Amino acid sequence: MPIILYDLAGAEADRRFSPFCWRTKMALAHKGLEVETVPWRFTEKDALPQPNAGRVPVIVDGGQVVHDSSAIANYLETRYSDRPSLFGDEAGRALTRFVQNWTETILQPALIGFVVLDIHHHSAPQDRPYFRQSREERFGRSLEDVVKDREARLPAFRESLTPLRRTLERQQFLGGAAPTYADYIVFGAFQWARAISDFELLAADDPIAAWRGRLLDLFGGLARKSPAYGG
Amino acid sequence: MPIILYDLAGAEADRRFSPFCWRTKMALAHKGLEVETVPWRFTEKDALPQPNAGRVPVIVDGGQVVHDSSAIANYLETRYSDRPSLFGDEAGRALTRFVQNWTETILQPALIGFVVLDIHHHSAPQDRPYFRQSREERFGRSLEDVVKDREARLPAFRESLTPLRRTLERQQFLGGAAPTYADYIVFGAFQWARAISDFELLAADDPIAAWRGRLLDLFGGLARKSPAYGG
Repeated sequence: MPIILYDLAGAEADRRFSPFCWRTKMALAHKGLEVETVPWRFTEKDALPQPNAGRVPVIVDGGQVVHDSSAIANYLETRYSDRPSLFGDEAGRALTRFVQNWTETILQPALIGFVVLDIHHHSAPQDRPYFRQSREERFGRSLEDVVKDREARLPAFRESLTPLRRTLERQQFLGGAAPTYADYIVFGAFQWARAISDFELLAADDPIAAWRGRLLDLFGGLARKSPAYGG
Repeated sequence: MPIILYDLAGAEADRRFSPFCWRTKMALAHKGLEVETVPWRFTEKDALPQPNAGRVPVIVDGGQVVHDSSAIANYLETRYSDRPSLFGDEAGRALTRFVQNWTETILQPALIGFVVLDIHHHSAPQDRPYFRQSREERFGRSLEDVVKDREARLPAFRESLTPLRRTLERQQFLGGAAPTYADYIVFGAFQWARAISDFELLAADDPIAAWRGRLLDLFGGLARKSPAYGG
C-alpha cells in the first residue's frame, strides 16, 4: 500500500511547490517507498487527517499519520531503517540540523522576497486572499512592493550562498558522494522557487546550479518531471 | 613521542590565538594525543619544517610533517582511526565542510572586523608592521577605522549567528550529544576572538555562549586554561 502524502498544490493541481513537501518527496524516493500524493490547498485545513498542525506535509503510512517534514524524515529513518539512510550516523543527523537552520533562517527568507508574488499568482483562486493577507501582514507591505527591487537584490543573494557554493565546488552533494537529507532540505527551497517562478536565481555557471541539476535528475527525474520553470 | 604543533603566538608566548591552530589543538585532544606546542610568529616563515605554506598549524608526527588544519584533521582521522572519530561517517565528514565554509566565509570575516586591532596589539612587536600593512591593504583602511563602529555592528553580527544559535538550542553540540570536528571549527573562531579581545561578542544568555562554555570545559579545560579574556 503506498504512503499517502498531502502535498501543497496551486491553481493547477499538478504544480507542487511547498519546499517542505519536496523534502518529504525526495526522502520517500531516497527510501524507495511508493507514494500517492493528494493535492492540498492552504485553506483546506479540514481536509487533513488528524493529527496535523494545519500545514503540509502530512503522510499516512498504513494507520500512522505523521506531520511536519522533520518528524516525517525521522519517522522514515526509524521505520525503514533497513533502507538507505537519510542522515548517515548521529553526527550526520546532528549536522543536518545546521543545514536545516541555515536553509530556514537564511535561504528561504531570502527566496521568498524574490518569488512571493509568483506564489500568489500560482495559488488556487480560493487561496489567494488568505495568502496575500497573511504575507502582506508579515512583510508590512504589498507583495508587489516586496518583489519590485528583486533584480537589485540578486547579487547580494548569490553572495549569501557562498558557504553552499564553496562546499559544492568540492563535492557532488552536501552529503558527500551521494545525496542525503541535507541535500533535500536545501533542494526543496530551490525547487519551491523553480516550481512557481521564472526568475532565475542562479547564474548558469554556478556550481549550485549544477548541483540542482543533479538533484533534478535523481530518482528517474522525479523533480524535473514536475511542472516548473526553466533551470 | 608527543606530536609537535607549530602554534601562532603573540607578544606573550603563551597567548595562542590562531583559529586554525585551535581547531588542531582540539582535534589532537579529541584523539587523546599528546602534543608539544612551539610558539611561532607571523614573520618566522623560515622556522617551519618542510613542507609548509608559510602558515600554521603545522604538525610533526614522528617523521611526518602535515600542514593546513583540514589536512591535519584528515591525517589524524586516518592515522588514528582507532581513536574517537572527528567526523562520524562520510555524511558527517561531508556536512562538516558546510560548517567549515560557513565559518570561513561568514563567521570569521565578520569576527575580524571586531578584533583586528586587538590582534595587532597582541602580536609580537616584530610582527606588527607586517600584520598592520597586510590587513590594512586587505581592508583598504586603517585598523582603527575598521573597528571604530564595532558596537553598531554587534546586533547584525549576533543576528547572523541565527543558524548556529537555533541548532545549539536543540542539541548540546553541532555534532550532537558529543562534540565533533565541526564544533572545533566554529569554536576556533570564538576562541581566537576571546584570546586577544575583551570585546564581548555574545550576550550572556545566548545559547552559543553556553555552548562555548562547554567547549572551554572539554579536555580538562584545555581552552579555558589558555590565556584569554572573559567569556
